[in-house]
Amino acid sequence: MERPRHQGMAKNTYMRWRLPLICLLWEVAMIVLFGVFVRFGPEADAHWEEEKREMNLTSDIENDFYFRYPSFQDVHVMIFVGFGFLMTFLKRYGFGAVGFNFLLAAFGIQWALLMQGWFHSFKSGKILIGVENLINADFCVGSVCIAFGAILGKTSPIQLLVMTLFQVTLFAVNEYILLNLLHVKDAGGSMTIHTFGAYFGLTVTRILYRPNLEQSKDKQGSVYHSDLFAMIGTLYLWMYWPSFNSAISEHGDAQHRAAINTYCSLAACVLTTVAFSSMLQKKGKLDMVHIQNATLAGGVAVGTSAEMMLTPYGSLIVGFICGIVSTVGYVYLTPFLESRLHIQDTCGIHNLHALPGLIGGIVGAITAAAATEDIYGKEGFIKAFDFTGTYQTRTPSVQGGFQAAGIVVSLLMAFAGGALVGAILKLPVWGDAAAENCFEDDVYWEVPEDEESDVYHMHSPDKPASP
Amino acid sequence: MERPRHQGMAKNTYMRWRLPLICLLWEVAMIVLFGVFVRFGPEADAHWEEEKREMNLTSDIENDFYFRYPSFQDVHVMIFVGFGFLMTFLKRYGFGAVGFNFLLAAFGIQWALLMQGWFHSFKSGKILIGVENLINADFCVGSVCIAFGAILGKTSPIQLLVMTLFQVTLFAVNEYILLNLLHVKDAGGSMTIHTFGAYFGLTVTRILYRPNLEQSKDKQGSVYHSDLFAMIGTLYLWMYWPSFNSAISEHGDAQHRAAINTYCSLAACVLTTVAFSSMLQKKGKLDMVHIQNATLAGGVAVGTSAEMMLTPYGSLIVGFICGIVSTVGYVYLTPFLESRLHIQDTCGIHNLHALPGLIGGIVGAITAAAATEDIYGKEGFIKAFDFTGTYQTRTPSVQGGFQAAGIVVSLLMAFAGGALVGAILKLPVWGDAAAENCFEDDVYWEVPEDEESDVYHMHSPDKPASP
Amino acid sequence: MERPRHQGMAKNTYMRWRLPLICLLWEVAMIVLFGVFVRFGPEADAHWEEEKREMNLTSDIENDFYFRYPSFQDVHVMIFVGFGFLMTFLKRYGFGAVGFNFLLAAFGIQWALLMQGWFHSFKSGKILIGVENLINADFCVGSVCIAFGAILGKTSPIQLLVMTLFQVTLFAVNEYILLNLLHVKDAGGSMTIHTFGAYFGLTVTRILYRPNLEQSKDKQGSVYHSDLFAMIGTLYLWMYWPSFNSAISEHGDAQHRAAINTYCSLAACVLTTVAFSSMLQKKGKLDMVHIQNATLAGGVAVGTSAEMMLTPYGSLIVGFICGIVSTVGYVYLTPFLESRLHIQDTCGIHNLHALPGLIGGIVGAITAAAATEDIYGKEGFIKAFDFTGTYQTRTPSVQGGFQAAGIVVSLLMAFAGGALVGAILKLPVWGDAAAENCFEDDVYWEVPEDEESDVYHMHSPDKPASP
Repeated sequence: MERPRHQGMAKNTYMRWRLPLICLLWEVAMIVLFGVFVRFGPEADAHWEEEKREMNLTSDIENDFYFRYPSFQDVHVMIFVGFGFLMTFLKRYGFGAVGFNFLLAAFGIQWALLMQGWFHSFKSGKILIGVENLINADFCVGSVCIAFGAILGKTSPIQLLVMTLFQVTLFAVNEYILLNLLHVKDAGGSMTIHTFGAYFGLTVTRILYRPNLEQSKDKQGSVYHSDLFAMIGTLYLWMYWPSFNSAISEHGDAQHRAAINTYCSLAACVLTTVAFSSMLQKKGKLDMVHIQNATLAGGVAVGTSAEMMLTPYGSLIVGFICGIVSTVGYVYLTPFLESRLHIQDTCGIHNLHALPGLIGGIVGAITAAAATEDIYGKEGFIKAFDFTGTYQTRTPSVQGGFQAAGIVVSLLMAFAGGALVGAILKLPVWGDAAAENCFEDDVYWEVPEDEESDVYHMHSPDKPASP
Repeated sequence: MERPRHQGMAKNTYMRWRLPLICLLWEVAMIVLFGVFVRFGPEADAHWEEEKREMNLTSDIENDFYFRYPSFQDVHVMIFVGFGFLMTFLKRYGFGAVGFNFLLAAFGIQWALLMQGWFHSFKSGKILIGVENLINADFCVGSVCIAFGAILGKTSPIQLLVMTLFQVTLFAVNEYILLNLLHVKDAGGSMTIHTFGAYFGLTVTRILYRPNLEQSKDKQGSVYHSDLFAMIGTLYLWMYWPSFNSAISEHGDAQHRAAINTYCSLAACVLTTVAFSSMLQKKGKLDMVHIQNATLAGGVAVGTSAEMMLTPYGSLIVGFICGIVSTVGYVYLTPFLESRLHIQDTCGIHNLHALPGLIGGIVGAITAAAATEDIYGKEGFIKAFDFTGTYQTRTPSVQGGFQAAGIVVSLLMAFAGGALVGAILKLPVWGDAAAENCFEDDVYWEVPEDEESDVYHMHSPDKPASP
Repeated sequence: MERPRHQGMAKNTYMRWRLPLICLLWEVAMIVLFGVFVRFGPEADAHWEEEKREMNLTSDIENDFYFRYPSFQDVHVMIFVGFGFLMTFLKRYGFGAVGFNFLLAAFGIQWALLMQGWFHSFKSGKILIGVENLINADFCVGSVCIAFGAILGKTSPIQLLVMTLFQVTLFAVNEYILLNLLHVKDAGGSMTIHTFGAYFGLTVTRILYRPNLEQSKDKQGSVYHSDLFAMIGTLYLWMYWPSFNSAISEHGDAQHRAAINTYCSLAACVLTTVAFSSMLQKKGKLDMVHIQNATLAGGVAVGTSAEMMLTPYGSLIVGFICGIVSTVGYVYLTPFLESRLHIQDTCGIHNLHALPGLIGGIVGAITAAAATEDIYGKEGFIKAFDFTGTYQTRTPSVQGGFQAAGIVVSLLMAFAGGALVGAILKLPVWGDAAAENCFEDDVYWEVPEDEESDVYHMHSPDKPASP
């Protein structure tokens, strides 16, 4: 059942040849590149028995799989169910939210395995992968999911795939600069994932500014059930965030500590989100948008420092502040960004990822700068910041400076990359919808006859009585 | 779009200053108390390298994190998604169910870390926390989520926070009496979590009795989709219950055994629930309320004994009985409690947690009393009941007696505590809604314009044609 | 509120005595059989302390629980939430989808523990169970969930229980033939679970052919929200499939490798599914049916080979092909099977499980036949295919032949078993609904008064104004 469409500004959203072509070609490219480059790492290769002997490992439990696989699966859920369902809050864009997120993430993880592999796991001409690579690929795609939040409902699946291609590439470059050149710590990705991903997405949406977007205003809201679907996303992100921030930390105390810090920060964040959600509303009622989003800011904001000796009360403080910053952002900043700066941020990623990401980078820099051998122990200090080899003589305050530099680099990469990609996505060949058809699944999806229509028919006299 | 409200008995549900104030003040208190008391335990502290050497550990995999973190995450899902979504069955209280559960649990876990920490992890003036503390905090909050089920839809968020504050405190005291003074085993919390939590909640709801509650009768039911949302909660509770009952058991066989026993009990419980749901209904049809709730009773009822040598068939028997008891409870007992004893139990926690919790305590006492060195092995026997130090000479039958005493203590604490807290919550300052506005999200939440209204408008002539 | 029913062909769907009786009797049988046969395996028994000493294990972490429990929980979620919610896509059969899946799986895992136990874990008259048995029981039930997909909406809960009883039995026999007699590898169950389960279900639905099914055509579709519920099922299956295929592989590299291969195959599968979904539709729009189902074919198709040295690019190729095969199947094959072969396949399991399962068996045979000591290493080669004892001299090409034989055996068992069970289910005593009442929860469930009706009432003048 086709709905009538507005005539003016009709755009060609016909996907039939463009979308299949890009999917198939790119997937073939993946196969070729994987064929040339990707092999199992030593812990996933059948030669592991020999490897074990060489490394004097007495048990299979020493395989990295058992240290990281549970966290990997939690992260995997965050990317596909967490981000996917968080974005289903729109009343008529649930298919696009979950479905396009699924598509871009499935492509992105393959491309990320390659890009990150070349930078970090390249040995004698091959990329050797293991469970840690899978986590990192999911992380990388996480930054694309974040950017997707800014342009949700306004772009075609092709645009999303193009953005994924470029953003994953730039992510890997930025990550390489931070982790390898600046020797920065960022296990939970406050800088590499959240700051970069969010400002990238915000720049893209700025360039794709749609002056007539109020034409689809009626579809930008939620309905009762769509808000509950979104809460599935929120809760999975919230619950598994301790796994996110600890997934690639060093074995042992670092993983343990990162989980605890994140747990604490997130708990505090809920309280201040609720407080400010009620306080900033005349009727004092809670707003689902805040509960769905600002409660997560605490996880973002300890992304860099969670594996450090931030301490539980330090985490509470960070969460406390971020719940406030994020909720205030939703109430005041998002409308301001839209009206004054022409940044149309569908999901409010500026409040959930950009600002908390910046705070996370800063908290990380401060926590690193404040590190002492007394707090960490002699060995723990070296292990925590990897002050070995070339970095043997780096001091905490210098590390803090480099951490701060990491924020700046991430921001610059995001702005430059976002501008470039935004310009590419503005080309009129990608099949995005007209303003009045934004936030509407019907453009790219076969949508079942509406429940609403059913209802109507049910009581209309011209329909045969239902059995 | 405000709905018109009944005039009579208008209550002040305005939250704007009260709720923010309590959230902010309490969170500040948490920060101060965490700052004074809470530090990382040895396995999460950066000094772990030295710790490992002292304890002669050769691998990071010996860190408790790897023994318990996967179970912790499962428990975490149960508390936030499990309980949260289980309660979304009401047609117009989904936001409150998921959202208030989120709020009280986020506050509760912080306060529980402190309360339980003072009792169990207090060393040289500091509370040292690790993953086991996180699990225990989640457990403690679980008892509050249970109590929430009894008063669901009838209380303000402030009342819930006040109840959480007191209930967590009393939980910790009760738990201390049971585990430390009576030396009782209760790894899955049949007594400490379920019996205590449920009778506490039932006492509270008795004291908050609302004679005119039938005024909101039309909102006490479910709709088709809300029942499916509730099934998400049910299934996550059901699937992860083996993790719940095994999460804090001793490493090795005890965790393994607890998971198997729980798996068996839950499976049997589904069959008898279905049987009695159909049998007790004239038309022989299944009732979603039973499937959503009574299927879980088997998990509650092996909470004490799952880590003991209950055996798989013993677990099946327990599950078999509890499916019946719980379903019969929903059909006959809940209406009786409401009409005769004025106990208005929204979710029927008496059938899901109270009765099965009591059965669980009794099964635990019997299983403990029946333990022999033959069944457990000499070392296993001592390890299973921790018959060391002061308890070296305790016999199984004495242990069984103490287990039974644990049930009685939990009941007394629940009744006394529930009465006290109920009286506090009855004060007319907490902003609860009038009877005719119960079970309605609109009181405390910004609710999006209804789907239903949309439909109506869609077909009304005065609305501009939608695009 | 009862809806009027069509008169003609009225069938007796009254469950009141039949369903309770079968549930109770069978559960009692389970208790008796468990009592006679089932005991804890050595790693779950309290004698584990002695066991550890005998096996020279120095740490509790060597307990199989820690190798497999996280994967077990993921598999558990796939069976209950994954399959359950995947089938909620029908507009009026959500209760039946989730609820009957719950019922049959809860019964099936108990019966599977016994059947598989007799074949594989039987020692001195007892079945000794541990976490691996739980996984295998879930696997076995997975094949029943698959078959359920073919007959979804057309059978009574009693028929489902009867089918489960027989199918689990046949599954165990088939599995024994494959794994023990043919010495075939099939860790992720391409043959034992998917090929067998799907062709079994298809045979059953063929025999239960309903010529007048178009009478309930209007209920065979989805509505907007039911498609989102189904996506929950899809995503959990998709995300946790790496756990499924690796759950019972050998410790260490095999588990690690199986997870990576599955991750890769699934990612590729999404891209080709999207491509063909758009390409095969005139308007070029995406079809939720394909996204919900065909994206999973990649996981099915590496079920046999995932633990082998399939390599990441090999996995991409398999996923690439299966996304295409499966989507094309939905568009062309399902309608053909229905109109020509009278196979009414509600969920299209032929495209999601049958064809990809066959491909998976073939890929497994080829991968095994192509194995060399060079690729696997000397020890790895023997370990991967368990070429020890009687099988010491088996060569890869012979193994490949046996693998292929495994496919044929699974097919024959499925056709013969399905025909037998279909004939039994055709008996007119099981209480299935008439054709015009298929796909309708109202037959077996107490369904809450419709949302739709609410709406209607809301605007009808004869209803008192809602508060």
